[in-house]
Amino acid sequence: MPQPDTARLLITCEDRPGIVAAVAGVLADHGANIVSLDQHSTDAAGGRFFQRTVFHLPGFAEARPALERSIATVAERFGMEWSLHDTAVRKRVAIFVSKYDHCLMDLLWRTRRGELDIEVTMVVSNHGDLAADVRPFGVPFVHIPRENGDKALMEQRQLERVQGNVDLVVLARYMQILSDDFLSRVGAPVINIHHSFLPAFIGANPHARAKERGVKLIGATAHYATADLDEGPIIEQDVARVTHSHSTAELQSRGADVERLVLARAVQWHCEDRVIVHGRSTVIL
Amino acid sequence: MPQPDTARLLITCEDRPGIVAAVAGVLADHGANIVSLDQHSTDAAGGRFFQRTVFHLPGFAEARPALERSIATVAERFGMEWSLHDTAVRKRVAIFVSKYDHCLMDLLWRTRRGELDIEVTMVVSNHGDLAADVRPFGVPFVHIPRENGDKALMEQRQLERVQGNVDLVVLARYMQILSDDFLSRVGAPVINIHHSFLPAFIGANPHARAKERGVKLIGATAHYATADLDEGPIIEQDVARVTHSHSTAELQSRGADVERLVLARAVQWHCEDRVIVHGRSTVIL
Amino acid sequence: MPQPDTARLLITCEDRPGIVAAVAGVLADHGANIVSLDQHSTDAAGGRFFQRTVFHLPGFAEARPALERSIATVAERFGMEWSLHDTAVRKRVAIFVSKYDHCLMDLLWRTRRGELDIEVTMVVSNHGDLAADVRPFGVPFVHIPRENGDKALMEQRQLERVQGNVDLVVLARYMQILSDDFLSRVGAPVINIHHSFLPAFIGANPHARAKERGVKLIGATAHYATADLDEGPIIEQDVARVTHSHSTAELQSRGADVERLVLARAVQWHCEDRVIVHGRSTVIL
Amino acid sequence: MPQPDTARLLITCEDRPGIVAAVAGVLADHGANIVSLDQHSTDAAGGRFFQRTVFHLPGFAEARPALERSIATVAERFGMEWSLHDTAVRKRVAIFVSKYDHCLMDLLWRTRRGELDIEVTMVVSNHGDLAADVRPFGVPFVHIPRENGDKALMEQRQLERVQGNVDLVVLARYMQILSDDFLSRVGAPVINIHHSFLPAFIGANPHARAKERGVKLIGATAHYATADLDEGPIIEQDVARVTHSHSTAELQSRGADVERLVLARAVQWHCEDRVIVHGRSTVIL
Repeated sequence: MPQPDTARLLITCEDRPGIVAAVAGVLADHGANIVSLDQHSTDAAGGRFFQRTVFHLPGFAEARPALERSIATVAERFGMEWSLHDTAVRKRVAIFVSKYDHCLMDLLWRTRRGELDIEVTMVVSNHGDLAADVRPFGVPFVHIPRENGDKALMEQRQLERVQGNVDLVVLARYMQILSDDFLSRVGAPVINIHHSFLPAFIGANPHARAKERGVKLIGATAHYATADLDEGPIIEQDVARVTHSHSTAELQSRGADVERLVLARAVQWHCEDRVIVHGRSTVIL
Repeated sequence: MPQPDTARLLITCEDRPGIVAAVAGVLADHGANIVSLDQHSTDAAGGRFFQRTVFHLPGFAEARPALERSIATVAERFGMEWSLHDTAVRKRVAIFVSKYDHCLMDLLWRTRRGELDIEVTMVVSNHGDLAADVRPFGVPFVHIPRENGDKALMEQRQLERVQGNVDLVVLARYMQILSDDFLSRVGAPVINIHHSFLPAFIGANPHARAKERGVKLIGATAHYATADLDEGPIIEQDVARVTHSHSTAELQSRGADVERLVLARAVQWHCEDRVIVHGRSTVIL
Repeated sequence: MPQPDTARLLITCEDRPGIVAAVAGVLADHGANIVSLDQHSTDAAGGRFFQRTVFHLPGFAEARPALERSIATVAERFGMEWSLHDTAVRKRVAIFVSKYDHCLMDLLWRTRRGELDIEVTMVVSNHGDLAADVRPFGVPFVHIPRENGDKALMEQRQLERVQGNVDLVVLARYMQILSDDFLSRVGAPVINIHHSFLPAFIGANPHARAKERGVKLIGATAHYATADLDEGPIIEQDVARVTHSHSTAELQSRGADVERLVLARAVQWHCEDRVIVHGRSTVIL
Repeated sequence: MPQPDTARLLITCEDRPGIVAAVAGVLADHGANIVSLDQHSTDAAGGRFFQRTVFHLPGFAEARPALERSIATVAERFGMEWSLHDTAVRKRVAIFVSKYDHCLMDLLWRTRRGELDIEVTMVVSNHGDLAADVRPFGVPFVHIPRENGDKALMEQRQLERVQGNVDLVVLARYMQILSDDFLSRVGAPVINIHHSFLPAFIGANPHARAKERGVKLIGATAHYATADLDEGPIIEQDVARVTHSHSTAELQSRGADVERLVLARAVQWHCEDRVIVHGRSTVIL
């Protein structure tokens, strides 16, 4: 997946005529060839503009500073937020887990296969149970228990490991609620995976309550974690079909299958710089 | 789909050894051949027992009274609830609508094609808008407006048409909330279709709020209407995939596609006597 | 869906640096605002370039000739094929049918609801069976039978109706194989819908043969008709789940549900100018 | 999943009245409680009869010989084929692989999680590549290369390991075609997984050819291996959606995701004694 001399440019600003031309002009002036360009405006007039551009530029590393100066000039003119990503630089990811292994194993395994172009720099857990499962993958397993129930201390120790060292935190069925303080200090986006139902069953034992109601589909939602934990911008969702003959345990097992697929897709899209947050929503380009 | 001399027997009771043998024995004694038998117990021991049996019995109409007496004897022994349905007798269905046509048209059209083996005896609406669409199908369109906002009067007039004349009421995007009084007096099960999301967006303008949150799937739930309107036992659910590029109107259009498929399946299963309500859940056999 | 003063520009050419900038520059020079731009290159270097651009240009009708001249100049420089479509001009569609009604009714009904922004100018059939179903939609039903088995004559009469009068022909379960001669003379793209299985069951009675093999999914493929009828570029596909308990007739009914959804999506995408044919494949932008 | 004192009885015979009653009578006579019963007849009259019965019988191990004698008596009367399975006895499974790991890892991982109630007794491979991946699971990895291209010798050595020692062979992307001789001598059913498309692309490089044609869905089929390798009775199928932007490599990666899910389901259903082969088809009960 990583291509030499290839980069991704994300921009967002208020929509107005001439944005695409200006950005494409800068890239052409620097000799870049646009490999793919996805653009979205929330309205034909007066909306918000989003663009993801993948381009190929021989000698990108050397050309980058000059290119960035040119982009900055255009960006100032249009009031753009922008970011530039070298596809050769893998995103460093910390995976947070508790006791459930299904999402963790799927991410490690897809990374080893080369399906996920990321670098898993550590697995952080409040329990030691999954250490042996992580070992064959050669990824450090960092056990930070919640000693004496002290969550603030646990989060402080997590932050010491994570701050400045990772580009993304993935909550792979991490069963502790992150504090607002943690989220404001972590310095990297946080992706969470959550079971989901139609309609929702909020609170404890949702699978048991879904079973009681006779649901026919169970699902999962991957989203960015925000202060309001399960209400952040949605990245991906999917469902699996169930019947009355599935026990609550089987609902959980089917749900686990969906969770790992949905989380893997969300992490992949984030790490391919496809996801732009727009208020409480996302644009996937 | 309707087979001559074929009937369906539904039973439910506390589970204990010997139920299947006793029921199958009665059918064999009367010369019936079991075409299909689906059985479900909620637990291996001490659970609830559900069974749907389709059988072929030459001369069923004549044999029915004697067969029913034999079933009643077995039913008494096991404390069964049971019902017997002649597949040659189509269920009479009233469809309630307001202004949305997609679910109505789909039900009428599937009935005309022979996919739904029902008799639509009337379409009841609080608006006159859909009368012309119903006419080509030869089904009476009964316009009962909510005059002066008087819902009790409207429901009274609906009940006069429906009570004793239908085996099922289908709310095909009927936009009035039925009163508890209506539900207790209608004398037939009522199936409703409802948009659904992961997670749920309860209240007004759910599509707009789902759009705000960036949902990737929109769905529909068909369920039996109970006093708590959107909380009745679920019969069927499904979803369709959407993206950030879909407008709120397009979410509604995609949702309409799912609604009509889900409602058609729910009506079909109900009318094939496949659905047994168990508390707030359903067993689909 | 149709927006005033909004148009779509489709282009394809050999990929090289500067295409996006050149096209966006022309649009910006004429005062157009790009509403959406989707671009695809088959390879980072040396591939084929495809782009669909939707733009808003106040006074488009008046501005069109000058804009077209500017586009032509750029197109010549890059060796582009291009087409420009006014969204206010609905595509004129002829629907060809035989005796199956499901795809036809779905297209007519979606058009009436405003979901499909097309003008169905005629329904052409080799049988008279569906005339009554078409009447309520106010669309001319043209019955052109295959008299004395003379297919060439039938096609000649079809061509007289269709040539120059439609922008698209949709084969909505039209059960005659179009001759190469018809396809070369019709002067409009032709979309066909075909049942599909994993794996394929080629030849007669595919549903019966799929049943024999115990297939668990049945599907449909919408594609452009080419001289090799079922081998044209694929526009859309989907599947539905089936089990051993479905009869061959029920497989056909389930298949019909998939066919109408897949065909409707293919027609919609084509008429929104989203589909570019590339050799035997398609790019959906 | 395994329940104490619980067994599964599979029967198939020509359909005629009284079968369910006779079998249920035998079970009731021996004090068994039927937990679930699924029955299917291919026709209302004159068809083939299939039944899967799960029952709970305290002291099953001791009661089994007497029960089997009673079943044999009934079986003789109706000309039944039948088999009785103790759920406490896990099926012994040999997994055959070559170099692709996705299906293998998924099966091992689901088994470790307790989702698949099987005993993987060996992994057999013609290549040594996956030995290290298998080691953490504690399952013997048996490397039997095709020395000097001698397939007959390789198969002979495989048979020595497998014959009499396993209840099932799973070809988890095993890239050698098994000889008819192997299949006739292996003494256990063999499940294979195969990529599938709508329509089919038979022969070499199917993903590349599907890409050429612009397919929108790629799928997988799990089936019993027969002399005609990819034509055996189908157990399960599923698909994933793809677009023109997926490279041939990404089609393979998506396909791999579908393959492992479909194979895992097929193995689970087989090992829960849910699959009955009927000619070239299957009945899943």
